[in-house]
Amino acid sequence: MSNLRELPVLDTAADAVPCCPPLSRKPLDAVDADRLAAMFKALGDPVRLRLFSFIASHEGGEACVCDLPDVGVSQPTVSHHLKKLREAGLVSARRKASWMFYKVEPAALTALSGLLADRS
Amino acid sequence: MSNLRELPVLDTAADAVPCCPPLSRKPLDAVDADRLAAMFKALGDPVRLRLFSFIASHEGGEACVCDLPDVGVSQPTVSHHLKKLREAGLVSARRKASWMFYKVEPAALTALSGLLADRS
Repeated sequence: MSNLRELPVLDTAADAVPCCPPLSRKPLDAVDADRLAAMFKALGDPVRLRLFSFIASHEGGEACVCDLPDVGVSQPTVSHHLKKLREAGLVSARRKASWMFYKVEPAALTALSGLLADRS
Repeated sequence: MSNLRELPVLDTAADAVPCCPPLSRKPLDAVDADRLAAMFKALGDPVRLRLFSFIASHEGGEACVCDLPDVGVSQPTVSHHLKKLREAGLVSARRKASWMFYKVEPAALTALSGLLADRS
């Protein structure tokens, strides 16, 4: 019993990101299509995409909710969009003092980029 | 007048694809976000994403509508999805004999892949 080793704990959405070959190489099956379409759908709203791009381009790929730019929508709407990005596994969130910080999940971004890569 | 040269005609949606730096480098402005979100939205449906991946992975990135796999929806629904992909500039269509052929727009795919690329 003393030889048992603990398995690593996968604690972020990024760990569960599917790692699919480029679309140009192999058609997606229904299961992968469900998961990946949810990610694309999360990026399929202009306001959400702008918020995501602001977080992604911020230092370290992380931004305080207090630094988000005015994108012409109310604070509750911004919160709704950030929740959708989290649910899709595109960002993670953590509290620091009294502010929430949102960080891009690089593995998710890499997976989507690779999926859309050219066949070359 | 005899020295006038004709300007090249841009006749595909791909010619109009925005060519933005990766999201991790620079936040998107509202205009680019509108156009790119429309592309992501088109990929944000599991059935549409499967159809798109089938076309992308077919020989030459082009597939006859007669070869599309059964994705569990009716023919009118398939047509609707193909129309959405066309409107987003992700595929183009041409008639060959009595069949429609759909072809992936490589420039659109490259633009989206580059947008999601890592900052490195």
